[in-house]
Amino acid sequence: MKISVVRDILEANERIADQNRDLFNEHGLLVLNLMSSPGAGKTTLLEKTIEALKDDLKMGVIEGDIQSSQDAERIAAKGIPVVQINTGGACHLDGNMIRDTFGEFNFQDLDLMVVENVGNLVCPAEFKVGEDFKVMILSVTEGDDKPAKYPLMFHESSVLLINKIDLLPYVDCSIDKIKEESLKINPDLTIFDVSCKTGEGLDGWFDWLRKRAQAGAAA
Amino acid sequence: MKISVVRDILEANERIADQNRDLFNEHGLLVLNLMSSPGAGKTTLLEKTIEALKDDLKMGVIEGDIQSSQDAERIAAKGIPVVQINTGGACHLDGNMIRDTFGEFNFQDLDLMVVENVGNLVCPAEFKVGEDFKVMILSVTEGDDKPAKYPLMFHESSVLLINKIDLLPYVDCSIDKIKEESLKINPDLTIFDVSCKTGEGLDGWFDWLRKRAQAGAAA
Repeated sequence: MKISVVRDILEANERIADQNRDLFNEHGLLVLNLMSSPGAGKTTLLEKTIEALKDDLKMGVIEGDIQSSQDAERIAAKGIPVVQINTGGACHLDGNMIRDTFGEFNFQDLDLMVVENVGNLVCPAEFKVGEDFKVMILSVTEGDDKPAKYPLMFHESSVLLINKIDLLPYVDCSIDKIKEESLKINPDLTIFDVSCKTGEGLDGWFDWLRKRAQAGAAA
Repeated sequence: MKISVVRDILEANERIADQNRDLFNEHGLLVLNLMSSPGAGKTTLLEKTIEALKDDLKMGVIEGDIQSSQDAERIAAKGIPVVQINTGGACHLDGNMIRDTFGEFNFQDLDLMVVENVGNLVCPAEFKVGEDFKVMILSVTEGDDKPAKYPLMFHESSVLLINKIDLLPYVDCSIDKIKEESLKINPDLTIFDVSCKTGEGLDGWFDWLRKRAQAGAAA
């Protein structure tokens, strides 16, 4: 009984997310669903990405938080159109919430939309929002046992950014183990080692994104 | 319709959690529900706590993970009775899952039961498991904006351990801001600054726990 309710919600969400994706595709937008634990560095990655790519790509951002608009304010300060969704308790974004923001954007003016999900390594992986790619961040401060413990997000993501590598000298964490276990779960995962603080390793991510967004905009 | 389903689940859980708590209380057990984001240091805190208090308190542990038994193996290595719950996808423990472990423990032999929840700063705060106190960990690597962004867990917890203070020189995080914003949400919160790695600050936590557990065992 409980299971059938959950399945209905997931199926209904899938339909709405697919409609969102069709609409994004019609406008040639690349859409990313950016996910991680709280504090792994999603908003900082976005700030760095906006700074690096603002001359190449016209970006929009949808910020998901349970409450507060601190992240949206950080993004707005970069001169990028941004909408804050407050879920009011819900632990993930879904297709409906994304659809509700559509009136706030002019899709013709955008090449790339990044949806920053609620900080949570579990539930957001189950709910599509209309993205082309799921991108996840794992901070080295979270430890190298996380792929085995939270496999769904690693399985669903196309890109894994291993962040805060500037802290590697101070924490017990093997990047090799993270990579090995992540690739066991998802052999197609593209992995970048980065520090959003120092900028180390971000060029590979910028290149990946630029190529995908330009292909999307051309389509 | 969706809302009523969710409410039913929460109410049903509340009833089961209350029954669990009654049973724990009958045996004079203190029960903690230990919660945090992935990788904030729950299992390491438990390891340190077992080492420090094993002569004073007879402890049991229930480990909650989506999958894997790595944490239970770490606890078992300390010579403590431990049961692993694999939620198989679910992002939090609930009263039913805890009840299912009861056959594995001999409550008469225990003073303290710690339930280590799934790593998630959102959902576990909504589901009681039968605990006397909720205890949360926030790592300084997660950033000082977390109370405002994830208020429910701060609101529901009796104790906040601010962990990984050994990393403070290398991250942008104000402990004062964490405390100020946490206490705005929950003025009754007891806060300890700790490093589970170096052991700094843990004595205050051990004292807090020893007092509560001895009061529980005497009841």
